[in-house]
Amino acid sequence: MLSFENDYSEGCHPAILERLKQINLEKNPGYGADGYCQAARDKIRQACESPRADVWFLVGGTQTNQTVIDAITPQYAGVAAAESGHINVHEAGAIEATGHKVLTLPEHDGKIDAKELDAYCGDFYQDGNYEHMVFPGTVYISQSTEYGTIYSLDELKAISQVCKRYDMRLFVDGARLGYALSAQGNDVSLVDLARLADVIYIGGTKQGALFGEAVVFPRGDSPKHFLTLIKQHGALLAKGWLLGVQFDTLFSEDRYSVIAYQANQAADRIRQALRAKGYQLTLDNPTNQILVTMDQATIDRLSAQVKLGYMYPVDESHAVMRICTSWATSSEQVDQLVGLL
Amino acid sequence: MLSFENDYSEGCHPAILERLKQINLEKNPGYGADGYCQAARDKIRQACESPRADVWFLVGGTQTNQTVIDAITPQYAGVAAAESGHINVHEAGAIEATGHKVLTLPEHDGKIDAKELDAYCGDFYQDGNYEHMVFPGTVYISQSTEYGTIYSLDELKAISQVCKRYDMRLFVDGARLGYALSAQGNDVSLVDLARLADVIYIGGTKQGALFGEAVVFPRGDSPKHFLTLIKQHGALLAKGWLLGVQFDTLFSEDRYSVIAYQANQAADRIRQALRAKGYQLTLDNPTNQILVTMDQATIDRLSAQVKLGYMYPVDESHAVMRICTSWATSSEQVDQLVGLL
Amino acid sequence: MLSFENDYSEGCHPAILERLKQINLEKNPGYGADGYCQAARDKIRQACESPRADVWFLVGGTQTNQTVIDAITPQYAGVAAAESGHINVHEAGAIEATGHKVLTLPEHDGKIDAKELDAYCGDFYQDGNYEHMVFPGTVYISQSTEYGTIYSLDELKAISQVCKRYDMRLFVDGARLGYALSAQGNDVSLVDLARLADVIYIGGTKQGALFGEAVVFPRGDSPKHFLTLIKQHGALLAKGWLLGVQFDTLFSEDRYSVIAYQANQAADRIRQALRAKGYQLTLDNPTNQILVTMDQATIDRLSAQVKLGYMYPVDESHAVMRICTSWATSSEQVDQLVGLL
Amino acid sequence: MLSFENDYSEGCHPAILERLKQINLEKNPGYGADGYCQAARDKIRQACESPRADVWFLVGGTQTNQTVIDAITPQYAGVAAAESGHINVHEAGAIEATGHKVLTLPEHDGKIDAKELDAYCGDFYQDGNYEHMVFPGTVYISQSTEYGTIYSLDELKAISQVCKRYDMRLFVDGARLGYALSAQGNDVSLVDLARLADVIYIGGTKQGALFGEAVVFPRGDSPKHFLTLIKQHGALLAKGWLLGVQFDTLFSEDRYSVIAYQANQAADRIRQALRAKGYQLTLDNPTNQILVTMDQATIDRLSAQVKLGYMYPVDESHAVMRICTSWATSSEQVDQLVGLL
Repeated sequence: MLSFENDYSEGCHPAILERLKQINLEKNPGYGADGYCQAARDKIRQACESPRADVWFLVGGTQTNQTVIDAITPQYAGVAAAESGHINVHEAGAIEATGHKVLTLPEHDGKIDAKELDAYCGDFYQDGNYEHMVFPGTVYISQSTEYGTIYSLDELKAISQVCKRYDMRLFVDGARLGYALSAQGNDVSLVDLARLADVIYIGGTKQGALFGEAVVFPRGDSPKHFLTLIKQHGALLAKGWLLGVQFDTLFSEDRYSVIAYQANQAADRIRQALRAKGYQLTLDNPTNQILVTMDQATIDRLSAQVKLGYMYPVDESHAVMRICTSWATSSEQVDQLVGLL
Repeated sequence: MLSFENDYSEGCHPAILERLKQINLEKNPGYGADGYCQAARDKIRQACESPRADVWFLVGGTQTNQTVIDAITPQYAGVAAAESGHINVHEAGAIEATGHKVLTLPEHDGKIDAKELDAYCGDFYQDGNYEHMVFPGTVYISQSTEYGTIYSLDELKAISQVCKRYDMRLFVDGARLGYALSAQGNDVSLVDLARLADVIYIGGTKQGALFGEAVVFPRGDSPKHFLTLIKQHGALLAKGWLLGVQFDTLFSEDRYSVIAYQANQAADRIRQALRAKGYQLTLDNPTNQILVTMDQATIDRLSAQVKLGYMYPVDESHAVMRICTSWATSSEQVDQLVGLL
Repeated sequence: MLSFENDYSEGCHPAILERLKQINLEKNPGYGADGYCQAARDKIRQACESPRADVWFLVGGTQTNQTVIDAITPQYAGVAAAESGHINVHEAGAIEATGHKVLTLPEHDGKIDAKELDAYCGDFYQDGNYEHMVFPGTVYISQSTEYGTIYSLDELKAISQVCKRYDMRLFVDGARLGYALSAQGNDVSLVDLARLADVIYIGGTKQGALFGEAVVFPRGDSPKHFLTLIKQHGALLAKGWLLGVQFDTLFSEDRYSVIAYQANQAADRIRQALRAKGYQLTLDNPTNQILVTMDQATIDRLSAQVKLGYMYPVDESHAVMRICTSWATSSEQVDQLVGLL
Repeated sequence: MLSFENDYSEGCHPAILERLKQINLEKNPGYGADGYCQAARDKIRQACESPRADVWFLVGGTQTNQTVIDAITPQYAGVAAAESGHINVHEAGAIEATGHKVLTLPEHDGKIDAKELDAYCGDFYQDGNYEHMVFPGTVYISQSTEYGTIYSLDELKAISQVCKRYDMRLFVDGARLGYALSAQGNDVSLVDLARLADVIYIGGTKQGALFGEAVVFPRGDSPKHFLTLIKQHGALLAKGWLLGVQFDTLFSEDRYSVIAYQANQAADRIRQALRAKGYQLTLDNPTNQILVTMDQATIDRLSAQVKLGYMYPVDESHAVMRICTSWATSSEQVDQLVGLL
């Protein structure tokens, strides 16, 4: 059955499988001390233009958010995020399980607003009682967001400035970073992110890898004994080279960009078709996730022939559905979907 | 200087000090195994008409909320509370520090609404992804609330029903319970609470004790090894009889009601004066906390002569201030304040 | 360079890579809801003769120990383990990070003794102060152990009986379970384990998989909302079918046994050679890990040509080294090693 | 009934009750911002000859250990303690509940040995795998110990040096510190402790206060936002001045020393009598706790007339019992006990 349900329904880019096969019987040291991880780290440092960057490889997204946020957020502090942020909604309380409160800010198409963040912090420190409250210590944003939108460079700069003003660390969840970097109209480069953020995670799972997320501390200021902290969070893969090989492959031959670009183009074609046929796009965005507000009859009709993602109800007869392309989406699949719309 | 800043600025009811002196050199077993705790437990069981109730004594409010919520909330679940709930705002993340998310609901004069709670739970369980989310496991309400308002019996019944429908435990933070029970217009008795809630904490610190909060499981269903859990949370007082004596004294000769009633009466007199002099009461409520919206000039003028509590800003020139009476407020103090208004 | 350093230095059994390639572009539902996981669960249920068993797939060993122990151990309790147990020594405090104490028992060649466990529990409950102590709630054993030894059926029965007597749950860390099941002299079947233990984890990472551990609750009594708990611990793999395919492959055509058997045979050949050449085996055991007490000169000589594992120092001039075979060890490699000894 | 069961069976020094009565209706600011706390802090700074010291007041011992150790120990680290240390045995896992492992060292009459600590750390950092292990980050000792013994100045200096060598913080649990300072043969002053340790807690509960423990950071280097951390641990007393008044009273007129000295003298008299009558002292120590190895017949005979503390069994017919004096022990009580022996 045709599916545009999400971007993690297939395995991985064939080049990755090919290399896994080639090196299958090689003996490699464990826990990321191998040459493939080293090579991948170098390529990522180069892509970030951050030669001093620390780069770590973890397995999954929730795990990465949990481990990083717990490690960089002071014990007395929480992490500010959009109400719609993945850590606030869909991680089963993984952040709170490490003892940190998620402090919510309003979301605007999935994004937080620098001025609102500034006001939040200002109010916080003016409250006579703030020592009885959870300090904002880390700011979490996702690029692209859970709704497929992207921050502009100006927006990011403004957020970064607020973070500096209030001594907060800026953490970018890039589970779908490639889709953001390759989006039409995007003006934020990986180098910008590396300059503006304190920690970035570059997603693999949703962008061509079997699994894996790369955590980058652009200025080389990882928390002390971060390897131990990864292990303590159950997030240290024994055969670490599996992660190294995957990121080395994705960051070779510009693959990380190319495959995301293709997914975005497929999404653009679908968006065009939706507009042409009078569908109501829930919001305007340029990446691989398309949010469409549909009535129940349409949902039922389409769902009989193609898997879509369910986002949230609007009213009794309408809901927001997600159409999601991926690095693996083919032209034929897009054609089929467009035919069904 | 005159102060109406809060209800925990003085020591304790003189009868308590008197008894502490009397028994000072008695040798008592530790950790609540003494006769005073036993007597206090019996009196509280009687007051709740819950002969099977388990009653435990802890030292402070945040500690009590933290220990109880952590103990009764399943590991996969969080605790639903009003946005303005003490656990969400002023406990420094003590709940999250035990691994549980605080799930926020809108507040209406400090109270949650049963229908909104119902809708929240309904939406939760209809979400296809709810297993990736934090389950609502416990519902936290305060009586009286952080804004001095009280739930009516009908409101409590409705909340209790929603809790039963969704298999949630209802926990009542009664840091200021006496003020609620003694308030004009209140129709909720301690017996009602014991029937409708799963756990109640009866506050001592703000109602005549030096310190101490009594935790009541009306149906005798404390979490297994709850004493150990109290100890594990650093909340087990060595000289437990100090708590027993205090609650025994407060629940003798109807003191717990009488002293709260007096505080409410003092607040009523102040409310009358405020209305007479054209002050703007922020909300209408019958307990010992009065919220008044004041302009800055008035705040400055009053603050020179009487300590008030600062609640939150309204706009650039107005703020909500709190006038708080207590079991220790005298007629003379009320007269002085009224003179200043 | 020749390496017998550990059993997780290579990729995976070729049949697994082959299948991953075959299904690479299939669209599968995430988080373990796919058909491959279903098939693997069925095969494992059959192998355990436990038709009602719940089977879950996680990624790594520390993660699995952490998630399972936290989920099955009451909040007031800890987990008893041998001093040499992996959770006590080499998991960076992952168990304590979830709030549970590891209660240590003496180790005898890596194993705990049922009588000592019994005495420990007996003493615990006789202590007048036990409510101020950490209850033994779960018992952790590894099969094979960190030192390559195995429990006999009688030993396991005795431990299981103590667990029942004191209401503790028995958890078997089977990171190297296949090597135990296939060992010469082993009298404990998977069916026995499923009958005697409350939870078993069947290791994949060290036995032919790229990664992955299968958690089995033989009587179908997983903790409530265990999927949510896995997610909360950062341990839920998005592309869950990757785990399903691997375990389905390992439990097809008897592979899980065969590859472990071969590794044990390789180890047996090495043991024979060691004995023949007068080396001092640190202990007598039948699985893929060989512990040898060596003087520094020998260590230096061998280390120039083959990677061995370092276990622990004995005295200033001797240390215990580990020679470890795996499913990937070839006859040629064994020959080379024997030549070097 | 006569009791020498422990040193927290009575209320408090009468001078404290007297002052509590005097100030009962004063209005004081909460959470330790009052003048009594300020005065007590100054007196403690003076007693420690540490003018820059930060001083905090908490309510109970387990709470204090939990809050301090969690706040000063890095996330990747644990706390080293004697096997017999209070945090390891009798705090219901309160340390582990905050995520930190207790790393145990052998106990010698309740004390750890600097050389063994040194060897432990040395071995730790030589282990090739130490990044997979829990780092020793804090060292916990008690003065006097759980067995009533005391560290000599040389012993403390040696431990302090090992702490510096391995970048560990030294924390002294002084629940019974006064009894140590006033003991015959003691050569460690409070000033020495303040110089050698990073954090000291000066116990009140067991030494004349109703409750309360003072935490001292001699060099003024409290963890950032420590007040918030205290609150987050449920350990911030609303009416903080109750703690201030108690410590101010105890550190006035040399009371803290005098009352402990009297208790030690009472214990000395009992020790003399025990020796004279042929009892077997379990160990030789100079403070208010006396450990005696008794046969069951003697235990039964004495227990009929005086409450003793039970420590641990020796063999089937012998156990170690504790005779404990306190600031409240009278000459008459000692006479009675000596008569019974």
